[in-house]
Amino acid sequence: MVKEFADIRIGESAAFSKTISEADIFAFAGITLDCNPIHVNVEFAKNSIFKKRVAHGMLTASMIDQTLISLGGFGTIHLSQTVKFLMPVFIGDTVTVISEVTSKNDEKRRVTVKSVIINQEGKTVLEGEALILIPRED
Amino acid sequence: MVKEFADIRIGESAAFSKTISEADIFAFAGITLDCNPIHVNVEFAKNSIFKKRVAHGMLTASMIDQTLISLGGFGTIHLSQTVKFLMPVFIGDTVTVISEVTSKNDEKRRVTVKSVIINQEGKTVLEGEALILIPRED
Amino acid sequence: MVKEFADIRIGESAAFSKTISEADIFAFAGITLDCNPIHVNVEFAKNSIFKKRVAHGMLTASMIDQTLISLGGFGTIHLSQTVKFLMPVFIGDTVTVISEVTSKNDEKRRVTVKSVIINQEGKTVLEGEALILIPRED
Amino acid sequence: MVKEFADIRIGESAAFSKTISEADIFAFAGITLDCNPIHVNVEFAKNSIFKKRVAHGMLTASMIDQTLISLGGFGTIHLSQTVKFLMPVFIGDTVTVISEVTSKNDEKRRVTVKSVIINQEGKTVLEGEALILIPRED
Repeated sequence: MVKEFADIRIGESAAFSKTISEADIFAFAGITLDCNPIHVNVEFAKNSIFKKRVAHGMLTASMIDQTLISLGGFGTIHLSQTVKFLMPVFIGDTVTVISEVTSKNDEKRRVTVKSVIINQEGKTVLEGEALILIPRED
Repeated sequence: MVKEFADIRIGESAAFSKTISEADIFAFAGITLDCNPIHVNVEFAKNSIFKKRVAHGMLTASMIDQTLISLGGFGTIHLSQTVKFLMPVFIGDTVTVISEVTSKNDEKRRVTVKSVIINQEGKTVLEGEALILIPRED
Repeated sequence: MVKEFADIRIGESAAFSKTISEADIFAFAGITLDCNPIHVNVEFAKNSIFKKRVAHGMLTASMIDQTLISLGGFGTIHLSQTVKFLMPVFIGDTVTVISEVTSKNDEKRRVTVKSVIINQEGKTVLEGEALILIPRED
Repeated sequence: MVKEFADIRIGESAAFSKTISEADIFAFAGITLDCNPIHVNVEFAKNSIFKKRVAHGMLTASMIDQTLISLGGFGTIHLSQTVKFLMPVFIGDTVTVISEVTSKNDEKRRVTVKSVIINQEGKTVLEGEALILIPRED
């Protein structure tokens, strides 16, 4: 999906939904080697303030990626990202990322994208803002 | 690794190194279902400005996780994260995260952690700042 | 397991059983980058005609592979495959592939293998036919 | 991506490209437990007629999935699939699936989709035909 900078409109949005599975958490732990038992140890998690295993915050945050590509196309370069983790995401939760173009810098070909991630109960679990660059095609 | 809030010192640092493999990138694509060919398509990547496949920015950013646990212990709650992607990370690059405690808020039990990620050539590929919470043990 | 073409008998059969897990579905989505929510989104699936997540048809079909190797040995070359998807396969279903040699072409060293896959209730979820080639050893 | 049966046009096409990695092959072997060394054993593969490891035929065939969803939308039900494996796919090959709607049965809401998969040299490695069903939305 190729997209031109000129085609990106302020107010345009993209969404992506996925149920966060135990398989995702183990795969993410394998990539990051994050050894926190809150993610991968059922017994430890039972005795934690969350009472059960939670997804890594950065795993949930990474779900934003799909929507950036939808908005900016395959050429999209991710320049920066901020995320606030507002609520835990548990195994089996279905998260929906909703991302919206909030500003464009025509000279630098940069686009600001605000994202919220909500769970299946409609609660906001994450808020973030990305800056992406859409390079000139040639 | 259990750690008390009181034990965390400003200036304390933790490091984590890993070679980013093709397997990491495919696993990350499987989690995020990010279908951008710059990550998973050799031919597309050849013709891109990077000339070869690059790791997802959020994959590299996720390498910070380990160091947050080292600094804050297993109870660490990730409240927020900022990241700036400064250079691409390629398959086979060995990245080193160096994270440092830069401030503490005793009342709120919050700790600010600044991270840089450098590649095997010593170049900074990412900078970020996390806010973490160390809940009271009980 | 090396097997000679001459050793393969018409009527010979092989079976393979496996419980289809959520991890299989997420791994398969990771390989194919198939983003259909019917496979990976619990909430979407609840409101679908299936009422819950279903395995990708091609995932179930791929379970035939094992039996082809059992019948044809390690040298087996898969020339073609047909599959009919008759019923959905859900997470936790245990499927059993039963494959049978139905014809041999001595000149071309080709073998036709018919497969059925049944679930734990004995219902047929898939039917298929493969053509395999057994190259001369040398 | 919701799509109505009426919106699907004969001649419409969709494409999907991906480099087949060693990680894909190991993940696929983990799902299917296909133990053929031609896929996972470098030494065995060296002495085979292919001289190196090849992707499972059904792995390559599964790449068709994405294009069926692109053409039929999230409601797509895969009814049947035929595939002919014409050439081996090796680790590192970039395959491109090109799928085209070739006929529609309005009464049964069925769509026939022909697919070819080509490699980075433009050679056809697979041909196939799917029958999909687009259920009525309600």
